[in-house]
Amino acid sequence: MEIKKPYAVYLGDVPDQLAAKTGDGIADWRPDWCMGQIRLPGCGADCGLPNMTIAEAANKGAKTLVIGVVNQGGFLPEHWIKDIVAAISEGMDVASGMHMRLEDFPAIKAAAEQHKRQLHNLRHPTQAFKTGRGEKRAGKRALTVGMDCSIGKKYTALAIAQEMSARGMKVDFRATGQTGVLIAERGIAIDAIVSDFIAGAAEWLSPANDPDHWDIIEGQGSLFHAAYAGVTLGLMHGSQPDALILCHEPTRKHMRNLPHMPIPKLEDAFEPYLTLARLTNPKVRFVGVSVNTSNVSEKEGDQLLAQIEDRFSLPAVDPIRQGPGKIVDELIKI
Amino acid sequence: MEIKKPYAVYLGDVPDQLAAKTGDGIADWRPDWCMGQIRLPGCGADCGLPNMTIAEAANKGAKTLVIGVVNQGGFLPEHWIKDIVAAISEGMDVASGMHMRLEDFPAIKAAAEQHKRQLHNLRHPTQAFKTGRGEKRAGKRALTVGMDCSIGKKYTALAIAQEMSARGMKVDFRATGQTGVLIAERGIAIDAIVSDFIAGAAEWLSPANDPDHWDIIEGQGSLFHAAYAGVTLGLMHGSQPDALILCHEPTRKHMRNLPHMPIPKLEDAFEPYLTLARLTNPKVRFVGVSVNTSNVSEKEGDQLLAQIEDRFSLPAVDPIRQGPGKIVDELIKI
Repeated sequence: MEIKKPYAVYLGDVPDQLAAKTGDGIADWRPDWCMGQIRLPGCGADCGLPNMTIAEAANKGAKTLVIGVVNQGGFLPEHWIKDIVAAISEGMDVASGMHMRLEDFPAIKAAAEQHKRQLHNLRHPTQAFKTGRGEKRAGKRALTVGMDCSIGKKYTALAIAQEMSARGMKVDFRATGQTGVLIAERGIAIDAIVSDFIAGAAEWLSPANDPDHWDIIEGQGSLFHAAYAGVTLGLMHGSQPDALILCHEPTRKHMRNLPHMPIPKLEDAFEPYLTLARLTNPKVRFVGVSVNTSNVSEKEGDQLLAQIEDRFSLPAVDPIRQGPGKIVDELIKI
Repeated sequence: MEIKKPYAVYLGDVPDQLAAKTGDGIADWRPDWCMGQIRLPGCGADCGLPNMTIAEAANKGAKTLVIGVVNQGGFLPEHWIKDIVAAISEGMDVASGMHMRLEDFPAIKAAAEQHKRQLHNLRHPTQAFKTGRGEKRAGKRALTVGMDCSIGKKYTALAIAQEMSARGMKVDFRATGQTGVLIAERGIAIDAIVSDFIAGAAEWLSPANDPDHWDIIEGQGSLFHAAYAGVTLGLMHGSQPDALILCHEPTRKHMRNLPHMPIPKLEDAFEPYLTLARLTNPKVRFVGVSVNTSNVSEKEGDQLLAQIEDRFSLPAVDPIRQGPGKIVDELIKI
């Protein structure tokens, strides 16, 4: 996949920062690729990039308008279409991680044809997958899993892969969502796969490798989320992880977008993941807890991490504040 | 969905009877719709219908060629294409439950256009789904779950729905696979849904209903199958069942198509289903075990059912041999 850089990141008018996780992801992990952000009135998200209009972005040389936001279900709201058409008219390509194809909007399709611009649909893999086999593959695999969606699974996996690479280890970050695919420039948006092939696609994503090679696989959804647990489980079975990292956000009160469903207790989260993961890797174990402490003070965060380490006898880190070194120290024992 | 009857059931050259479960399903549950079966040399399946060629079926008035077999992954083998084209040329429509659309084969598409015949793709629902919400809906729901795939979940659900209907209860069979959709003439092939929407599609399939209405939902896959557990879980979460029926086949030695993966023990199967199902229905419980005893003697089957009843304090029936009455007796207590 070749997406022309630099990017103008489109945030539309999403209500909160969590909805801008694609924008956040590329702004944080690929800042050199991001020229600025485009926000509509009422936008509740800010990825910390320079604000600009579409015309300004085009004048400064932005090559691709990246849709930096996800709605629940991944749809593209109709009132953003005219902005996208404007960007195409100004000469930009467009990249989207929505479930709907950009070509499904006649105005966008027509503009792209007229101005000979490329439309990238990150959630539409072109290859065909097989159903899962569950056969053990060579190489080592770690998977980030979560108490909820949008809780730090991608950042944790990226930070671990970066740290392993810095230590000279053989490692690949394996992207399983549209943001991860934008960052890694390869991978699969696993929630867009026809459900018969979830596990098979995950097997394809982390193929047999050298015995000392690590795939650090970005988790999706949560076993505890009523909408997405099926995706989480299929990805886990296909990934056959040797190691799991549990991702946690201590201030989250209910499952993402489901105010009637509480977050389970941390102590109740380990066993369900292990029980189910053993189907394709009986030796699977947790190697750490990754805590997003950005919503508490540094002191509270440190206390929380110490409590978790004490209680579960596992390394606990905020992979952004402290780095994932302690988890990598545990991983290399496998 | 209107599919013209009668049907000629195409079995191709699949290696065994399990691969012909679509053909078996319509031959067993809709015998009046099935005129005959078409088998290629080497075909290991027989649905008990009169054997005929495509030309014979057409001459006798068959209106639709139903592809009665599923391959792992649901693909349409290329060497069946010429038979399908011949059927179209003889004036038949075609119905397929494969993942590939019939129109994706240029020869089939061209023949259908030339002869003005309809192509039915049962695995391609046309409506859009939302992501799951996990909110409690009115009405009662039972879901069949399995030790493995292709183990009797659909037959069990159909038999229970038939028995409830005979007792004058408010009941709907909810089809979740291509064969069930052919039998019920509505439903969703859930394994063909984009994985983000599995639970949401299951919620759509069994909407809020009268408090005394039962949806008897056809289960898919198995929590213990490395390829399909994600589909199983998403369907279960969206169905929010009040009651589960565990489907078992006592002679099955390994998971379907995965000779390296053994079937778990029956006693280990209940708790994983309950633990996960409680996320969307804390009151869920098992109401029976449905055993396909067709591969053992009647005496052995009776002994096995008695053992299961004794051991798990649940009704155990072969829904075809004895009928599902005992399970319905348990369901009406809910």
